[in-house]
Amino acid sequence: MLSVIAIGDELLIGQVIDTNSGDIARTIAPAGWRLNDVQVVSDKAEDITRAIDRAFESSNIVITTGGIGPTKDDITKNTLCQYFGGEMIEDAAVLQNVKDVVERRGIKLNELTASQAIVPSSCRVIQNRVGTAPIMWFERDGKILVSMPGVPFETRQMFREEVFPQLLERFPSDSAIEHRTMLVTGLTESALAMTLDQWENALPEHLHLAYLPKPGLIRLRLDGMHRDKDFLAQDIDRHFAQLAEIIGENVLHMSDAEPQEILLEHLNRLSLTVATAESCTGGNIAHLITSIAGSSAVFMGSVVAYSNDVKHRLLGVKNETLEQYGAVSIPTVEQMAEGACRSIGTDCSIVTSGIAGPTGGTADKPVGTVCIAVKSPLGIVSHTHRFPGDRNRVIERASTTAIIMLIEQLKRLDSQK
Amino acid sequence: MLSVIAIGDELLIGQVIDTNSGDIARTIAPAGWRLNDVQVVSDKAEDITRAIDRAFESSNIVITTGGIGPTKDDITKNTLCQYFGGEMIEDAAVLQNVKDVVERRGIKLNELTASQAIVPSSCRVIQNRVGTAPIMWFERDGKILVSMPGVPFETRQMFREEVFPQLLERFPSDSAIEHRTMLVTGLTESALAMTLDQWENALPEHLHLAYLPKPGLIRLRLDGMHRDKDFLAQDIDRHFAQLAEIIGENVLHMSDAEPQEILLEHLNRLSLTVATAESCTGGNIAHLITSIAGSSAVFMGSVVAYSNDVKHRLLGVKNETLEQYGAVSIPTVEQMAEGACRSIGTDCSIVTSGIAGPTGGTADKPVGTVCIAVKSPLGIVSHTHRFPGDRNRVIERASTTAIIMLIEQLKRLDSQK
Repeated sequence: MLSVIAIGDELLIGQVIDTNSGDIARTIAPAGWRLNDVQVVSDKAEDITRAIDRAFESSNIVITTGGIGPTKDDITKNTLCQYFGGEMIEDAAVLQNVKDVVERRGIKLNELTASQAIVPSSCRVIQNRVGTAPIMWFERDGKILVSMPGVPFETRQMFREEVFPQLLERFPSDSAIEHRTMLVTGLTESALAMTLDQWENALPEHLHLAYLPKPGLIRLRLDGMHRDKDFLAQDIDRHFAQLAEIIGENVLHMSDAEPQEILLEHLNRLSLTVATAESCTGGNIAHLITSIAGSSAVFMGSVVAYSNDVKHRLLGVKNETLEQYGAVSIPTVEQMAEGACRSIGTDCSIVTSGIAGPTGGTADKPVGTVCIAVKSPLGIVSHTHRFPGDRNRVIERASTTAIIMLIEQLKRLDSQK
Repeated sequence: MLSVIAIGDELLIGQVIDTNSGDIARTIAPAGWRLNDVQVVSDKAEDITRAIDRAFESSNIVITTGGIGPTKDDITKNTLCQYFGGEMIEDAAVLQNVKDVVERRGIKLNELTASQAIVPSSCRVIQNRVGTAPIMWFERDGKILVSMPGVPFETRQMFREEVFPQLLERFPSDSAIEHRTMLVTGLTESALAMTLDQWENALPEHLHLAYLPKPGLIRLRLDGMHRDKDFLAQDIDRHFAQLAEIIGENVLHMSDAEPQEILLEHLNRLSLTVATAESCTGGNIAHLITSIAGSSAVFMGSVVAYSNDVKHRLLGVKNETLEQYGAVSIPTVEQMAEGACRSIGTDCSIVTSGIAGPTGGTADKPVGTVCIAVKSPLGIVSHTHRFPGDRNRVIERASTTAIIMLIEQLKRLDSQK
């Protein structure tokens, strides 16, 4: 029912990635709404106009993002004025809002920023509380176009708090949509699909299963659409429970959460603290954990030990071990796991040492070789992995795998209690 | 001249972000090619068919990504067979490739994975060396559609190494495109635009300036298109040099590089090493630096000191300082900067301590307050910042700002030599 048009040359040369359409999709999903399509187009009037025509063919609501900054390369505002009629006028309320936002940021209002207050007379303005670009609501023949900024945090906040509530009031929903997601580890996509083949073939019309593989895990999403909201909720829950039973212990979690969120949930429940000691992942595991609000309750810190000297001095890895087995070895990561808990003062640790590439590989330990150890009250578990792909993929895959290794220990610990 | 269609329900519910179109855009840019548009559509045959029709209206080359995995939710292959004609047949060479890839990954071939070898008879297959989904090249009336996998690293590598070289052979370019990018700091977008107003108005037809603001810095891109390649290269260089002169010391770098790449370039040239000591950025600065291949030559390690205890024990911050001024204070980050160099054994350090939110703010130090210190051979420089936005935006903005603070010291050091 809703289409997004992301406007900007920078999106088409790959300098910036469109994250706004994903934010919008996640915001509307709980209300049973979904995106019909997304178009990414350049800052050219004819491309924008054609995209709007096409979007209105499939949707009665269109959200445009971007192309409304104060600089010359942004021509969306004039194009919308031509499309919906009217003339460009200065709006006093917008000017006041621009002044307020600029003052809060502690910078001076200049002419160009002030020009944000000039808007098409054919739109209703929604004041942008977190930025200077006005949000413009156009309406014609029961179809609505809302023009939003390109800056992700402005669009995220204003769409969630202002635009979407107003759209919901205008178009109360009639058909319900639900989805349930679980995380599965330890199986390839096709092995999982074969396991589920018979069950999947027997699914009713109104339910549908989707496989979303990510490095190191698979998200499995069950989608449903039905006029009867209560029936749908019960029916999807029943099928989802069957699914979990078939997959068994390979289910990591019954949610769409990131592995680091699941880890924090377990640590909080068990009242345990964690540290990381990272070589090849270079702080990425600590970064993933600390991206989650509230992580400071259980995450104490990390030592990123890129050099052997740091592995020895801050984590207590013996020089003999480094000489005899090398930095990328099980004895080294196990000593790092002990050392991380000791020097940071935690119950658990997550440790990596490997060769992320593109250079540094040997016949024995090719690029992608990563030794991972995790320490928990159950002791130390370690394993040597070989991950495919380039440097960033190895880092990403090793980080996810290491977090999952500790989650699995904590699940064992939980089940023993 | 080229359109991308990204296929997959997961993209439209915001569970996965399309990064393939950006990868493709960056790959084709150096050859003077650019994307006309991107469409993101669902796994429905009629949506895919309509998107192809629309893409062929503006482009003679269409790349589709996704929708060709072995599981049931992927229906692209059959839809393409209907669109281009022919029938589904098993291709022996594809089957062999699937077997090879599966064997290299050390897993067993199952029926579903083997079904990847069934392809429309109307396509020419390009073997996917890094995955099991075949790449399919369709051609009709001089128009080409290439169907690629959704998995980003497969599409990135195979498009760069196989598909794009074959497209270039088929369509030698006639008009040249160039762009030059510089990074600007310390100015708002509109202040910069006003500074450049006169110069920008005097730009010739074939040149165009775009502003790409990112947290903490602005990318300024000068685009040019002209039939005469040599003239264009000279002309864009001349204008780009003028631009740099007008902006002066606010130019951080004459490239499109990430701040962490610029930092590594300076450290390498000056033969200096660096460590980070991170509280609120939680390892993100170390992660950004270590994402760059070769960073191990100058980056030694990091202490992520989330708890005060770690700040004291591993970085030597005095308990009196933490008690008197708090963890988020200039005295604390300055001691962390000394401590990081000392305990990790480096010449330089980058240090953060702040309140990323959503909780933890006070009237005195609201959410977004971040103290940053950098140490270099010129001594310690520190500053208290107040960043807008949510947790992840504060982390991102603080990380970029901290890296830029050290770059600026190293530029000073360089100019003194």
